[in-house]
Amino acid sequence: MLCVRCGSKAVYYSPHSGHRFCAKCFIRSIERRVRSTINRYKLLEPNDRILVAISGGKDSQVLLTILSKIERRFPQVTMTALAVDEGVPGYRDFGLKRCRELCEELGVELVVTSFKELFGYTLPEIVSLAEKRGVGLKACTYCGILRRRAINIKAKELGATKVVTGHNLDDEAQTALMNLLRGDALRLLRLGPKPIEEYPGFIPRVKPLRYIPERDITFYAYLKGFPFYEVECPYVRASLRDELRFILNDIEGRHPGTKYAIVRAVDKLSALGVKVKVKVKSCKYCGEPTTRDVCRACELLESIGVVAH
Amino acid sequence: MLCVRCGSKAVYYSPHSGHRFCAKCFIRSIERRVRSTINRYKLLEPNDRILVAISGGKDSQVLLTILSKIERRFPQVTMTALAVDEGVPGYRDFGLKRCRELCEELGVELVVTSFKELFGYTLPEIVSLAEKRGVGLKACTYCGILRRRAINIKAKELGATKVVTGHNLDDEAQTALMNLLRGDALRLLRLGPKPIEEYPGFIPRVKPLRYIPERDITFYAYLKGFPFYEVECPYVRASLRDELRFILNDIEGRHPGTKYAIVRAVDKLSALGVKVKVKVKSCKYCGEPTTRDVCRACELLESIGVVAH
Repeated sequence: MLCVRCGSKAVYYSPHSGHRFCAKCFIRSIERRVRSTINRYKLLEPNDRILVAISGGKDSQVLLTILSKIERRFPQVTMTALAVDEGVPGYRDFGLKRCRELCEELGVELVVTSFKELFGYTLPEIVSLAEKRGVGLKACTYCGILRRRAINIKAKELGATKVVTGHNLDDEAQTALMNLLRGDALRLLRLGPKPIEEYPGFIPRVKPLRYIPERDITFYAYLKGFPFYEVECPYVRASLRDELRFILNDIEGRHPGTKYAIVRAVDKLSALGVKVKVKVKSCKYCGEPTTRDVCRACELLESIGVVAH
Repeated sequence: MLCVRCGSKAVYYSPHSGHRFCAKCFIRSIERRVRSTINRYKLLEPNDRILVAISGGKDSQVLLTILSKIERRFPQVTMTALAVDEGVPGYRDFGLKRCRELCEELGVELVVTSFKELFGYTLPEIVSLAEKRGVGLKACTYCGILRRRAINIKAKELGATKVVTGHNLDDEAQTALMNLLRGDALRLLRLGPKPIEEYPGFIPRVKPLRYIPERDITFYAYLKGFPFYEVECPYVRASLRDELRFILNDIEGRHPGTKYAIVRAVDKLSALGVKVKVKVKSCKYCGEPTTRDVCRACELLESIGVVAH
């Protein structure tokens, strides 16, 4: 069982492509795929001021490592990392520590912000306020919406032109499937590889790991010796996404290439170039871009009696 | 637990809409939904010569019953039923018998054709030729492609302007999901509710049961006292569609409305009006419309050494 590139002993096998790689060639193949994704879809350009959203988890460690390697060749590009502390004790500490270590190793400036700083409350405080008021939303709903909002606020503050996130092939396939199962055709169309059309006040996001399966990211992280979380988020709960993750892994096992096929279908839909007309306004509370009068973040905070920041 | 329409005792409950119906109002609600699907998407028009593809199974019994009720009001419409005998002994006999009974009851002319008549061989003969040649395709592949072809040949022969099939909401949701999982964005776009654009030589197909869940069709058939198959097709085997049927039923149980949401997403995609450019040629053997030089039906028949008809 030899590496398809250099003939040394293979340590990796892809059931989808049938390729085997040694550790060195595997790492190179991942880096090459990330680079080609960036080039092909013009995710990043020479004058970009890049903000990389990181959590300290394996996806963001792999993302930041590969990006800083790529960007070393483009000295005019500026790259900053952003970690958002949602304030879950025990859980987030390890991630933040790892963010600091990694940024120091790679020589990347790290900005840390928090829900407390931006919204006045930590996630546990928000969850407990919601429980008191009988608002039946999950912690993950607050966390997702406020994290997204936090990233956009800081991106503007720091003058970033692109936000880069560590979403991988599995995330994208799950999201596509979720959009279909929820009947959300417009989100399916907007899930394409290119940076989302710029709205005033919204910094475009790009996902260079979009074609890398989670399995490959985990193996890359393992080969690089990146430490893993040992603590699971205490708020983790069964969601449609979790169900779909399980289902997709199951189908992928029997039909290798399914996740990739899903993401390629999304690409083809997005390549149709259908202009999805979205009317963007400014939230009447916080001024952030939204399709409604009050943005989802302010609405959530309002529903639990927290005044919009 | 009372009927939402007339207040008598309910026998039916929809977890998706929350509605309860008595038997009479349930039957009416299904017929109304079929009628409104036909009207909304102009599936059938007053001058159509309709060919209804039936198998004798519950979907086609329900379809033909409702259609003949609707079309009774439009005397200028002509309606013929078509049954395709693939020649599986034991299995098909019951279906054909039921087709004859039902057509007689409803006063609909029935045309019966067969694989033997059109292609020279029954399905079991084709499967055994394929096995001898080591062609690794499933019986369902031959059956699906040849059945589709048989229907189009007979539709043209009979001068039909529309072919009507009994595909239900579950079938459509499974197909949508299957197209996504196979990366087939174009098929996903062509799965919309309207009659597929006419190609020369291809009679457009419409699916008036597209928004009726299989569960409701089964209940309608039960209330009407339609007999069910007791024999399963001997060729039934695990396929991706079967996996998806199981998965979708499972998700629907936990998230009622998912199947409907999927089909609505397909509708929205198809409403974008993207022209899917398909170059249609005539098969060099049989002259039927195809996107290739040799159509899939002739290719299959050729691969097992059967000369194209």
